[in-house]
Amino acid sequence: MKFSPLLDELIQSLRCLPGVGPKSAQRMAFQLLERDRKAGLKLASALSSAMSDVGHCQSCRTYTEETLCPICASHKRGTSSTICVVETPADVLAIEAGGHFTGRYFVLLGHLSPLDGVGPEELGLALLERHLASGDVAELILATNPTVEGEATAHFIADMARRHKVMISRIAHGVPVGGELEYVDSTTLALSFNGRLPL
Amino acid sequence: MKFSPLLDELIQSLRCLPGVGPKSAQRMAFQLLERDRKAGLKLASALSSAMSDVGHCQSCRTYTEETLCPICASHKRGTSSTICVVETPADVLAIEAGGHFTGRYFVLLGHLSPLDGVGPEELGLALLERHLASGDVAELILATNPTVEGEATAHFIADMARRHKVMISRIAHGVPVGGELEYVDSTTLALSFNGRLPL
Ligand SMILES: [Zn+2]
Ligand SMILES: [Zn+2]
Repeated sequence: MKFSPLLDELIQSLRCLPGVGPKSAQRMAFQLLERDRKAGLKLASALSSAMSDVGHCQSCRTYTEETLCPICASHKRGTSSTICVVETPADVLAIEAGGHFTGRYFVLLGHLSPLDGVGPEELGLALLERHLASGDVAELILATNPTVEGEATAHFIADMARRHKVMISRIAHGVPVGGELEYVDSTTLALSFNGRLPL
Repeated sequence: MKFSPLLDELIQSLRCLPGVGPKSAQRMAFQLLERDRKAGLKLASALSSAMSDVGHCQSCRTYTEETLCPICASHKRGTSSTICVVETPADVLAIEAGGHFTGRYFVLLGHLSPLDGVGPEELGLALLERHLASGDVAELILATNPTVEGEATAHFIADMARRHKVMISRIAHGVPVGGELEYVDSTTLALSFNGRLPL
């Protein structure tokens, strides 16, 4: 015995969401049916619009339903000679929240991960190389995560940028401001020693 | 700065799902956009069909897109004089998987929980009382969960059944078969002593 066909279909479909197993899919379906059908319908329409209409910015690859994202479309920032390379659109938001960076971005939407089938093509590196080859880029700031994959991705991109004689930098990793030394992990601590600056 | 309007709308809408906070909503949206737009569209259509078309069985309240669920619609079981009261449709599936119970069900879709605004009306107890008053019910088996709320709900329904002179029973709670005594919690152990049967 199973649930009714439509309910079964809903529970199965919810499992496409990352981290949602059979039990939580059931709980989600029951909660929507019992408490909030309006929210369920709103989610259905948001999903269908986003899946159909959200594409990639033709210049930086971030998600947008326009040809260019607001930053790439802006007169001032879209032609900046400094490009900051990040892994996800959430990283762009985090850097923009800081408000210090005034260049443009390139969003990889991931990192090199051969076992998951993510290579240079999946990260749009051909598009990044066209930017580098155009002569419009003076500096490439690598802001991928300080993880094994993030570092490998940064090195791969650095090699590419070197071929085009573009200046390359990596954002600094170390003890966060306000963080207490004794609670910082040993890798971060090692990075913070390696990256020490003369006073 | 925010994500693009359609992406923001999707992330917001995903938060209607229980247990989904801002970070996991973001992760879900990115994963669907990047890896599986087809699954996202399928989920959209499953949600919209279920929210619009899944209703309640007119006899037992479980979720169904028909007037009666398959059990209530069956000649043999739909007119059974034994009704088993459970909290959720998942409980029905668990009991059906056992294959021993041949009566019909009444699905509360919750338990009494005054603080959450769940009273007798939300649990469809007026419909259950109509079954009890009809004279067609000989025994009511209470299979709500052995939690504080489940017990309170069972007592409330037992009082109602008594007024209609219907026999009432509660399923046994105790040490599960194959379970080791030393790993069973003390409440279950107490229930298993109280429910002891002469050999
Ligand atoms: Zn862009
Ligand atoms: Zn039914």
